[in-house]
Amino acid sequence: MKRFFLFAMMLAGVTAFAQQRNNVVPSFTGAVEDFKPSVVNQRGHQYPMVNSQGAVRAQLRAPQANSVQIDIGGRRYEMVKDENGVWTGTTEPQDVGFHYYQLNVDGASVPDPGTIYFFGAGRWGSGIEIPSADMDFWQVKNVPQGVLEEKYYWASTTETMRHCFVYLPAEYQKNPDKKYPVLYLQHGNAEDENGWGSQGHTAQILDNLIAEGKAVPFIVVIDYGQGQNIPLIPQYASKLPQGQNGAPNVSDAFAVVLINDIIPMIEREYRVIPDAQHRAMAGLSMGGGQTRRTSMANPTTFAYVGLFSGGVMSVEDVQGSAGYKETNKVLFMSSGSKENPRVMEAAEALRGIGVNAVGYVSEGTAHEWHTWRRSLYQFAQLLFK
Amino acid sequence: MKRFFLFAMMLAGVTAFAQQRNNVVPSFTGAVEDFKPSVVNQRGHQYPMVNSQGAVRAQLRAPQANSVQIDIGGRRYEMVKDENGVWTGTTEPQDVGFHYYQLNVDGASVPDPGTIYFFGAGRWGSGIEIPSADMDFWQVKNVPQGVLEEKYYWASTTETMRHCFVYLPAEYQKNPDKKYPVLYLQHGNAEDENGWGSQGHTAQILDNLIAEGKAVPFIVVIDYGQGQNIPLIPQYASKLPQGQNGAPNVSDAFAVVLINDIIPMIEREYRVIPDAQHRAMAGLSMGGGQTRRTSMANPTTFAYVGLFSGGVMSVEDVQGSAGYKETNKVLFMSSGSKENPRVMEAAEALRGIGVNAVGYVSEGTAHEWHTWRRSLYQFAQLLFK
Repeated sequence: MKRFFLFAMMLAGVTAFAQQRNNVVPSFTGAVEDFKPSVVNQRGHQYPMVNSQGAVRAQLRAPQANSVQIDIGGRRYEMVKDENGVWTGTTEPQDVGFHYYQLNVDGASVPDPGTIYFFGAGRWGSGIEIPSADMDFWQVKNVPQGVLEEKYYWASTTETMRHCFVYLPAEYQKNPDKKYPVLYLQHGNAEDENGWGSQGHTAQILDNLIAEGKAVPFIVVIDYGQGQNIPLIPQYASKLPQGQNGAPNVSDAFAVVLINDIIPMIEREYRVIPDAQHRAMAGLSMGGGQTRRTSMANPTTFAYVGLFSGGVMSVEDVQGSAGYKETNKVLFMSSGSKENPRVMEAAEALRGIGVNAVGYVSEGTAHEWHTWRRSLYQFAQLLFK
Repeated sequence: MKRFFLFAMMLAGVTAFAQQRNNVVPSFTGAVEDFKPSVVNQRGHQYPMVNSQGAVRAQLRAPQANSVQIDIGGRRYEMVKDENGVWTGTTEPQDVGFHYYQLNVDGASVPDPGTIYFFGAGRWGSGIEIPSADMDFWQVKNVPQGVLEEKYYWASTTETMRHCFVYLPAEYQKNPDKKYPVLYLQHGNAEDENGWGSQGHTAQILDNLIAEGKAVPFIVVIDYGQGQNIPLIPQYASKLPQGQNGAPNVSDAFAVVLINDIIPMIEREYRVIPDAQHRAMAGLSMGGGQTRRTSMANPTTFAYVGLFSGGVMSVEDVQGSAGYKETNKVLFMSSGSKENPRVMEAAEALRGIGVNAVGYVSEGTAHEWHTWRRSLYQFAQLLFK
């Protein structure tokens, strides 16, 4: 039942989206006319724009089109054509933070040519940023800068080359004898390893926290975890645990790669402190579920565990995994205020058995990236101290 | 006259594109039916496809559209709708290598939702890869892997944060006491710092060459060079040389940042051998022109110079720049066989005055990325030996 709940919750966004796809509404008419270009537009592009209410205004030149719509937040807003063949439409106010969206031109779903592109919702496509009062924490600032390394490596569990990103804090290259702790940080369903570095702003969040002395310097490893696309060789695939219906739980395919390939590769190729007290795992949504299952199956591997909109750990989860409680230093669970608020009670229950559990609720956000940026910002300050 | 020729040549691709935009032709009917998905498609997408002739077949579902076209190589090919509202079209054979393209839906130019996206032609948009007989040299292989680091840094010449990529060879982290030579490698007009790492496959080309012992390990720095978008502060902007019409030559704005900020930052933050004999500059198209002008203005700074489809250095250029000839170890000039073949004579003339000039012509390609990948492959083997 618990697993079903978790699974259902993770698919909630996708399901809601599918159910409401045909929810076509007129362009929003109540917008305050203080629109500014979105900060994730392509250079030189004025549209899409965002106003102080969080309404989005898009524009597309399509002189011969019969219908153009903005498809965002489960609704499609009708755009209106002017005499020059330029279509303009406005959405109702959106939550603060980052949203995936697309345009629909005569039945074709396409990216908006005005924005840069992000991987999410199972595709490369458009994104928009609704400014929030606290967006300062993920901006590029003139502080010591870490790097985000793009790296390919050979994985024995798939017998393929795989692709990951590695954040190294600014001081890493200056301290050739110092070793660092590592956070393994995962994306959600229908996303990939690009998300945390791009719309997640991992490098900026950590550079800024480290510069302010609020986080200790650590390495972050961001990999690809969509289980059904991880081609485990038979020797590993055959050992996957069974899911509810008797089939292998493909979500666990990532854990196989993480434990057998990613962690050993990182500990071999980077200056890393290779013990549980200096190793963390976290993830958002599906990645949070993977973090829960991976840490339960490997209870003495990660001293720090973070579930961002990824369900909760129960007292039974911890007590049923020998060594989990003794290894754990911080168990962090978060969610947006518009999704699952059970994280606070779950943390309280865990504190009742002596676990250092921390709950966090992101005000005014749902199952989206601003919840997860804020979660990383909070979690990072608790790590390796 | 020479400058004008160079400028005209660099804009040739753009101009040809603009002139032929309205060159609408029917879907190509002579295609061999052995189409396969393009290697730069999004995961799980069958379309666009490429056949053994290099013809491209695209597909888009747009049930209510009146017209859908494939816009590639200066032509727009009419796609045809089936009873399910799915449009399909086929282009004439394209040159081997990588091409930018887009779809046109009822007058709207949009990315093809089937491909991953690349920055070029002044926009983020679709790309397609036409297989070539020699495409092996840029594939990801199970050889020691370098990394491509994404890095922000403060620039005193613009008083802004800037963004670059740094390739570090596989052995860099294993040799904490070793210092490395550096190649500064630039993109073309209407492109940006993403090109060389993405469609250019710089990391793969160098990893493979180093693994085969054909290149020595070196660092590559890839930055953003579009002069009109580089906001030099007045103290530097006022010193830009004058162009033909008396206005500052904004193309030189990049040289100002390179000399005053990028090279010092790299030599401060990485283990670099900071002398001319271990410093190279190269660029494609506009970046080749920038390399020519920057190396002439700083004749004792770079011992290795590469112009990829970026015009030529003349005997007068070299003789007019005091110290250029004495500093230079290799002067490399390349072009596609379908563009400017003067590179071979120019190299011969330079060898006549004792310059180690090397000409290279990429067979069967024009002013496009496969010419430039091959140019890097050739140039890299000549560097720092």
